[in-house]
Amino acid sequence: MGTSEFDDASALRGSGPDFGAVLDGQWDGQGGTNGGFLLSLATRAAGLVLPFPDPLVVSGFYLRPGSPGPAQVRTEVVRSGRTTGFAQAGVYRDGKEVLRATIACTDLAAAAARGGQSYADGGPPGLPPPEQCQELKAAMAVPITLVDRLEYRVAELPFWLTGKPPSGTPVYQGWIRFADGREPDLLALPLFVDAVAPAALELGLHHVTTVQLTVQLRARPAPGWVAFQTRTRFLADGYLEEDAELWDSSGRLVAQSRQLGMVLR
Amino acid sequence: MGTSEFDDASALRGSGPDFGAVLDGQWDGQGGTNGGFLLSLATRAAGLVLPFPDPLVVSGFYLRPGSPGPAQVRTEVVRSGRTTGFAQAGVYRDGKEVLRATIACTDLAAAAARGGQSYADGGPPGLPPPEQCQELKAAMAVPITLVDRLEYRVAELPFWLTGKPPSGTPVYQGWIRFADGREPDLLALPLFVDAVAPAALELGLHHVTTVQLTVQLRARPAPGWVAFQTRTRFLADGYLEEDAELWDSSGRLVAQSRQLGMVLR
Repeated sequence: MGTSEFDDASALRGSGPDFGAVLDGQWDGQGGTNGGFLLSLATRAAGLVLPFPDPLVVSGFYLRPGSPGPAQVRTEVVRSGRTTGFAQAGVYRDGKEVLRATIACTDLAAAAARGGQSYADGGPPGLPPPEQCQELKAAMAVPITLVDRLEYRVAELPFWLTGKPPSGTPVYQGWIRFADGREPDLLALPLFVDAVAPAALELGLHHVTTVQLTVQLRARPAPGWVAFQTRTRFLADGYLEEDAELWDSSGRLVAQSRQLGMVLR
Repeated sequence: MGTSEFDDASALRGSGPDFGAVLDGQWDGQGGTNGGFLLSLATRAAGLVLPFPDPLVVSGFYLRPGSPGPAQVRTEVVRSGRTTGFAQAGVYRDGKEVLRATIACTDLAAAAARGGQSYADGGPPGLPPPEQCQELKAAMAVPITLVDRLEYRVAELPFWLTGKPPSGTPVYQGWIRFADGREPDLLALPLFVDAVAPAALELGLHHVTTVQLTVQLRARPAPGWVAFQTRTRFLADGYLEEDAELWDSSGRLVAQSRQLGMVLR
């Protein structure tokens, strides 16, 4: 047993390169296991086979929906260099691959110690502090177990909780953290970027599935709430991108992600 | 022989899953073979082993610098579904893997025929037409063969051609096309997103290498010039993202990319 719901649910058995896991049905979105959760699982496995402490950038392609039950994570060390290691991790259910991920790892503490120039064009979303925000507690038609593992706070409730029509502006902002008090770390960030409802719901879309998701991990998050902003800028021919930014409680950018989503009919 | 410099240089021999190629030294940037060119090569190989005509999203991890000489592209069909196929492609030089790529393919013409809702928050960069722009012809200290394969037009010359100091604004905009008149297609777009000098040069950085690059292919480009915009928003601890957008001559978004770059010392 781990020390939190997330660590329990993403625990890996074995010594590699192949690991055993159990998808416990508690991290599911509309279409099966949350894609961010699966990517976190693959990222954890990569960390076990590479001699670097921190994931730096992870990319996952979603091949099939994930479903509750026993799973395998099969890893391959692609290259282990001086500052960066690369691994591949496939997540399998019933012998079928549901996620193919590639992960680069490094030592972000060493990178921070080397320092260097900084630049930021933009900052965290302009949100009231979490205690002045509203809890986003979804009363949904379809049970989405994922939202019970997390706590969300928003300045403005989305249309699907107020009965209003979609706003036409596909941007969501708010605060997120684990419901059980586990602090965020780099492994949690691939989950967090994908744990928010698709901003494209605000365009009137109902079902969007992820084809591919890339997450850049930019710094180890400080304890506390994580601020998120997700946004879609372009939708055409049934495809859209969604970008997410995560900022830790110290106001630092800790992750940037982009996914390609496909509208389901 | 193909019909253009690009098609010749990215030609693949064999019937798969492993293909032969030759890196001819004519698509090189500061640190070896251009990363976008290598990703185009991997994307071409994926198209040969999947029953879908169009790349949809490609992700590449850069393991080692590419150099001129014989190369291999080893592919694996990861899954071939109803609307989307997934393949992996590794590019090898001297038996060592330089790029590990994953590629999703689909039929974008069929997607366009299905149609659906559209949304765009933003459009092509506000550039004068190419004939009113200046040719960007680099007289560089280091020979970068890539820039002789392409033609660039810009509204404003970058600081490294005018002798001014870096602007501090890491954004580049302009027009791009093949120098030999070959029209753009989806295979050219992974090259184009990475064929522009890093916008972070405008921050005073000198050497940036790509760790990972994801390219979303959003539509088959119309003939003619392609408008590009590249931009970096966040640099810290030696890492930065660079986003690129490509727009075809009809004003349509045809590609969006994001890369994680690492500052070299």
